[in-house]
Amino acid sequence: MSDYLAGINTVADLKRLKSYQLKKLAEEIREFLLENISVTGGHLASNLGTVELTIALHHYLNSPVDKIIWDVGHQAYTHKILTGRKDCFTKLRQKNGLSGYPKCSESPHDIMGAGHSSTSISAAVGLAMARDTLQQQGDIYAVIGDGALTGGMAFEALNHAGHIKANINVILNDNEMSIADNVGAVSNYLASLRNDPTLNKVKSDIEFLINKIPRIGGTVSGAVDRVKNALKYTFIQGILFEEFGFKYLGPIDGHNIVELTHYFQQAEAIKGPVLLHVITKKGKGYLPAEQNPDKFHGVGPFNLSDGSLKKQKSNKSYSTVFGETLARIAKEDPKIVGITAAMPGGTGMSIFAAQFPDRYYDVGIAEQHAVTMSTGLAKGGLKPVCALYSTFAQRAYDQIIHDAAIQNVDLTLAIDRAGIVGNDGETHQGLFDFSFLRPVPNLVMMAPRDAEQLQQMLYTAINYAGPAVLRYPRGVINGQYQPEELAEIKIATAEELLSLEDTDLNIIAIGSTVYPAQRAAAVLQQHGFKIGLLDARFVKPLAEEDILKTIKTSKKLLILEEQMLAGGFSSAILELAADQQLPLPDHSRLGIPDQFVQQGSMAEMKAEFELDAKGIFKNALALLGKVEEVEKLWQPGQD
Amino acid sequence: MSDYLAGINTVADLKRLKSYQLKKLAEEIREFLLENISVTGGHLASNLGTVELTIALHHYLNSPVDKIIWDVGHQAYTHKILTGRKDCFTKLRQKNGLSGYPKCSESPHDIMGAGHSSTSISAAVGLAMARDTLQQQGDIYAVIGDGALTGGMAFEALNHAGHIKANINVILNDNEMSIADNVGAVSNYLASLRNDPTLNKVKSDIEFLINKIPRIGGTVSGAVDRVKNALKYTFIQGILFEEFGFKYLGPIDGHNIVELTHYFQQAEAIKGPVLLHVITKKGKGYLPAEQNPDKFHGVGPFNLSDGSLKKQKSNKSYSTVFGETLARIAKEDPKIVGITAAMPGGTGMSIFAAQFPDRYYDVGIAEQHAVTMSTGLAKGGLKPVCALYSTFAQRAYDQIIHDAAIQNVDLTLAIDRAGIVGNDGETHQGLFDFSFLRPVPNLVMMAPRDAEQLQQMLYTAINYAGPAVLRYPRGVINGQYQPEELAEIKIATAEELLSLEDTDLNIIAIGSTVYPAQRAAAVLQQHGFKIGLLDARFVKPLAEEDILKTIKTSKKLLILEEQMLAGGFSSAILELAADQQLPLPDHSRLGIPDQFVQQGSMAEMKAEFELDAKGIFKNALALLGKVEEVEKLWQPGQD
Repeated sequence: MSDYLAGINTVADLKRLKSYQLKKLAEEIREFLLENISVTGGHLASNLGTVELTIALHHYLNSPVDKIIWDVGHQAYTHKILTGRKDCFTKLRQKNGLSGYPKCSESPHDIMGAGHSSTSISAAVGLAMARDTLQQQGDIYAVIGDGALTGGMAFEALNHAGHIKANINVILNDNEMSIADNVGAVSNYLASLRNDPTLNKVKSDIEFLINKIPRIGGTVSGAVDRVKNALKYTFIQGILFEEFGFKYLGPIDGHNIVELTHYFQQAEAIKGPVLLHVITKKGKGYLPAEQNPDKFHGVGPFNLSDGSLKKQKSNKSYSTVFGETLARIAKEDPKIVGITAAMPGGTGMSIFAAQFPDRYYDVGIAEQHAVTMSTGLAKGGLKPVCALYSTFAQRAYDQIIHDAAIQNVDLTLAIDRAGIVGNDGETHQGLFDFSFLRPVPNLVMMAPRDAEQLQQMLYTAINYAGPAVLRYPRGVINGQYQPEELAEIKIATAEELLSLEDTDLNIIAIGSTVYPAQRAAAVLQQHGFKIGLLDARFVKPLAEEDILKTIKTSKKLLILEEQMLAGGFSSAILELAADQQLPLPDHSRLGIPDQFVQQGSMAEMKAEFELDAKGIFKNALALLGKVEEVEKLWQPGQD
Repeated sequence: MSDYLAGINTVADLKRLKSYQLKKLAEEIREFLLENISVTGGHLASNLGTVELTIALHHYLNSPVDKIIWDVGHQAYTHKILTGRKDCFTKLRQKNGLSGYPKCSESPHDIMGAGHSSTSISAAVGLAMARDTLQQQGDIYAVIGDGALTGGMAFEALNHAGHIKANINVILNDNEMSIADNVGAVSNYLASLRNDPTLNKVKSDIEFLINKIPRIGGTVSGAVDRVKNALKYTFIQGILFEEFGFKYLGPIDGHNIVELTHYFQQAEAIKGPVLLHVITKKGKGYLPAEQNPDKFHGVGPFNLSDGSLKKQKSNKSYSTVFGETLARIAKEDPKIVGITAAMPGGTGMSIFAAQFPDRYYDVGIAEQHAVTMSTGLAKGGLKPVCALYSTFAQRAYDQIIHDAAIQNVDLTLAIDRAGIVGNDGETHQGLFDFSFLRPVPNLVMMAPRDAEQLQQMLYTAINYAGPAVLRYPRGVINGQYQPEELAEIKIATAEELLSLEDTDLNIIAIGSTVYPAQRAAAVLQQHGFKIGLLDARFVKPLAEEDILKTIKTSKKLLILEEQMLAGGFSSAILELAADQQLPLPDHSRLGIPDQFVQQGSMAEMKAEFELDAKGIFKNALALLGKVEEVEKLWQPGQD
């Protein structure tokens, strides 16, 4: 570690540095970030972009009395470094290690936990009102990206903050993109502001003059006011934000600490909401990331010299198979259109988009709009396929009920990143979708176990004349991938993978739990147990006949799901059995108990909740009365 | 029925009328609305405000080829009258009658079903893209109120529509309020537009001139562009919408059909998104409603002569008890603050607001912001109590998980209108909250059976150091109301209302099902059955000990909830029993099966799903093997 950074363990240490030393510190932090993230992986581009901004904020402000709220939070690494956590970066995003997002339990400087977009202004408004009510001190800064500004709740907060004249500062960290290309009229608007720097120079003088013009009240004459407004509209930028009741300052060079500090001082003198328009560059200071910020948004370990990834993915991801299959089906059906909410790469929708650019819509970070717009597309005669991450589909819950399901609209929701998501941790887990979608009438919901089933289920969902959901995990597929001949799966039917008759124990699995169940069953069989396995395929409607038969024939029964145990798949089975007055055999349910799942690799976290092959093996043995033999019978490598 | 209206059974009939006849038609429709709604009840003020607008739209457009999408939908009565449904108004909002909202199954002219706010622009964008992709014809109009514009998804849609230059027309129906007073900077902005009518007169001339100024491209010189912009900003109104990429037209007198038509013609000539700013008056033409639009937003039967309600509420509502209790607790605890999302009257928050105006926040129709802002308030040291309707809490699901629960913030969510809501029908039912909140860790969730328990549970929730939810029904309370001495209820404990030992049948009920269960039990007891009754009180965490004991001691068991059966309260009991390997006695679960609940009075719909006393009685008899005796044993009036 280099000169200045080595001496910084608290924000007080930072404050001891003189302004001219901060630039050097920024260089050191960039080096630190590159060294660490190239080893651990993490969010690189966004963090390289906010180094100076964060230094300027912490040097100028007095955190945590002054409060900095990081929207989404994937740009807060420098904040973590400066607030005493730099030694934790070797375990960044790892199990029991440093979170990749702000996390209140880590530090009093993390005011709001985050992970999802567009929440920071709302939190800032609440904090400001509490501060004023309790007559406390402290400035409140929300740092929000231009991408996050497309999320509706950011506008709800802007609108309210302007109305009540909340004394907050919103830093619009404008890096001209969110994760993918940015979307929206506001984004175009920001570009126009960025591109007129000359105007900015004379702005404060002009504003001073304008404020000297007296205001003529009442309705007597608006002439002077109108002249004043004319000047204002001509020379003051950021009218959009001014109309929302914010004072606009900027554009500001987000890599110039002196300029940033100057504007913070200006903002401090203004009572009421201020928007500071700060321009930064994603990936700043590392050429591969500057040139390809999308690739370096969230990245695995890479070679510092050229930015090449250290390990290539061993297999295709579910997202890729989804994208390729969607494109394949769309080739035959010109009515299919694809919708994403700012995640074209992550969802594989980019594969479809490349082939059918005219049939592809990225609406920005706007899941609510994405779903209701999809219902409009469907009602207009097209076949929309809308891909969202499970955790972000929570944002569109009301739209799924109110616009898609009540109206029984023919659309497909592809829910990616369902189940345990790994290193992003608790804010990103896709562990609620079974529970929140299962009570919604008219929905059909499936979960594929592998790439082959994903293809057939996507085809089934698209052909189903109503709202159909398929949910599949993050990461690489189970099994092999080849384009299959597409055939519909009969709704509400399961598949018997291992005969359920005359067994010692039967397993009912769904989606991501089927393959580890197969591996566990194979080892159990090696040890002489007779094991049945049913892939339930449908969460809603359940394959009632198959499941009832399984319950009836089972001596012991193990039910698996990568979801919360409350209200999920196994809960549906319990409801079915209860409503049929069918007693359950000796059984257990494996899934996620009543706790948030923390960060860690997907494999680690599945193991923690015994949803890997060994965990399933162990729980099967427990049902079979042999749990004490688990370590004896399980060989390493059988997972 | 009067001259013109009598002859209108289709939109084609309307088109035969000459322009000068339409004003008379508007009068007739107003009379029709008043005559009908004063008898049936319904949304009065909003519908009186849109008579001319709707006539103008249907006279000018060619529905359903041209598409009109009504946001929220409680202003679409004239639309229903003009599209062949005027004879259905005697059964407005009644069971099997005319819906109070647009409903696709009623008419091809109802393009999008609605009920919740802020969805119309998203739907319009989808429809427009489908139309253009399929090379079809037809103009698309979204009619959205100024209140609905505070909902974030409306901004998501504006932002996207402006970006892709969607060829849609958005009518901003500005009546200077939503249900309660309007909130937000945009609302102030609209007021400034309304109040400068002179400017409007010369606008089109000026615009013509501006467009004659040539645009200088590139970066060579921005001087001419800047002059052009100066003129634009000076003389063109609606800059806010123009910055979103919309062409702004207005303000327009929404009660002047000729003026409206003139602007529709203008809008048609413009390619790309247009915003027509139409000014209307809620309650127009009926003085009591003009003077008190809040009271006449949704109204029961009233006397036409003076606007007095025909029947006063017989008892206090849960909302009122909530508001009064909150105010009472707040008197002792200065840290309590109240938050509503545009429903101060509906939630009873207005009672608190009247006593503590400085501790009350109405954020507008913005549930996402309401919840996350509440987490900010809590983190700032206050004790927020945020009241939402159950159906609208669906809009804040992600914020409840991501901001309240993961961060384990000390706030109270008061979920009003939970369960069956009655005449508003399927879009407004509060039937999902148990299911979608139960899997969320850290939450505590309770449901009071009456006014007394509501008080204790609110007190318990406020004192609980984490996110606590209480959910209670629409309408008048069970039992009597008097301010109780406040005492906390121990978390996860139930209450034995009728001894559970040595019974023929036990009932486990919660919330709104407890009182009808008591009445059913009383009748069963009259007929010699021994009945036990447990009020479970907590949905999460369950009163495990009490419930397990009940299961063990029951010969027969009936479980009740006014919620979807999938994933709800009874599902939690099944999970508990299954995980304890505890076999269930002969039992049944009463709740809502897998279908949307249609409109009808609360009593009618509860009866339909056998959640009233007689239905519970019948299901208990069925378990007792005497179902055929239900009509013999049940006396009218025992409900």
